Amino acid sequence: MSVSLPHQLIHVIDQLERLPGIGPKSAQRIAFYLLRQDKERLNKISDGITNLAEGINHCSECGMLTEDSVCSICSDKQREKDSLCVVEGALDVISIERTGDYRGLYHVIGGLLSPLDNIGPESLNISSLLSRIEKNKPKEIILALNPSTEGETTSLYLKNLLEKEEITLSRLAHGLPTGAAIEYADDLTISRALSGRQELKR
Amino acid sequence: MSVSLPHQLIHVIDQLERLPGIGPKSAQRIAFYLLRQDKERLNKISDGITNLAEGINHCSECGMLTEDSVCSICSDKQREKDSLCVVEGALDVISIERTGDYRGLYHVIGGLLSPLDNIGPESLNISSLLSRIEKNKPKEIILALNPSTEGETTSLYLKNLLEKEEITLSRLAHGLPTGAAIEYADDLTISRALSGRQELKR
Repeated sequence: MSVSLPHQLIHVIDQLERLPGIGPKSAQRIAFYLLRQDKERLNKISDGITNLAEGINHCSECGMLTEDSVCSICSDKQREKDSLCVVEGALDVISIERTGDYRGLYHVIGGLLSPLDNIGPESLNISSLLSRIEKNKPKEIILALNPSTEGETTSLYLKNLLEKEEITLSRLAHGLPTGAAIEYADDLTISRALSGRQELKR
Repeated sequence: MSVSLPHQLIHVIDQLERLPGIGPKSAQRIAFYLLRQDKERLNKISDGITNLAEGINHCSECGMLTEDSVCSICSDKQREKDSLCVVEGALDVISIERTGDYRGLYHVIGGLLSPLDNIGPESLNISSLLSRIEKNKPKEIILALNPSTEGETTSLYLKNLLEKEEITLSRLAHGLPTGAAIEYADDLTISRALSGRQELKR
């Protein structure tokens, strides 16, 4: 007869293990930690998870997560309507907003093209992007997608799609991140930093 | 007006962030992952957490986690009653059982001495260990505590406590773990491997 942990504990470890970024050892550690918490704390966590999706919508304009039908950025009269920043997900909006450097609007496409995972243009909010461009005629579209293979593919796809329009199309600069050492940077980052080098004004 | 995520999402991120080993970025990633799961999956996870502690007891003999009043090891007639292995927690029992090399009983003390954290002998299952030794008169006690400062302190404390008894007292061997390179091993591990060196039989 082999010894095993109580089944409730195994169930929780099993569920935790299937979350992204949590391995078997972390799952065990978290489950034992939870076992030491009081009922109130456990209920707080489980209620949060149960009710997570309740009342969370996608903004009908830009696709951002919101508790209303239109998000706070789209309904903000102060934002510049001339500029549209295309991002993959809600976290990208939060990250760019944190800089305080962008005053335009966003469009969340909700993913990146990935033929291997069966994610084609029809799986993303691209038709809503096109109709929004048609309607609002922004002057500039900034493609702010991750510098990954999928991000590059999606940027290229959108570039081809929007080329005909009378719009300035740009993408975020690629190069060395702040604080990086050239010594440790990967080859692609260095070659992008080289090809995108900027002349110093004198 | 700054943009923010829906409050349900922030609540879950906040709760996840407070779990051991989960940082702000992992918490965000897990919360967004959960947001994409269906209701049934979320309920499975949250029910598991709510009901985690229901029906989980400590074995009245050894302190191991169990769904019964006495754990499967203590109630197993086949186990050798002569040997008692003292461990910190339930996971240590599972790990040692996995080797299949130990056929004796365990005693889970439920922690390690740590004066800085206010954990003294009275916080651990040490008095139950003593009364169990008194009652069952085992021949050997193996101290299988972690080779950390707290583990060493606790081993030393138990050694002093049990010295008077007519029992063989041992602790797990310290040395190089399997697959380790001496080149990368820390100094303490190497000096323990040296001082605990074993003569090769010829």
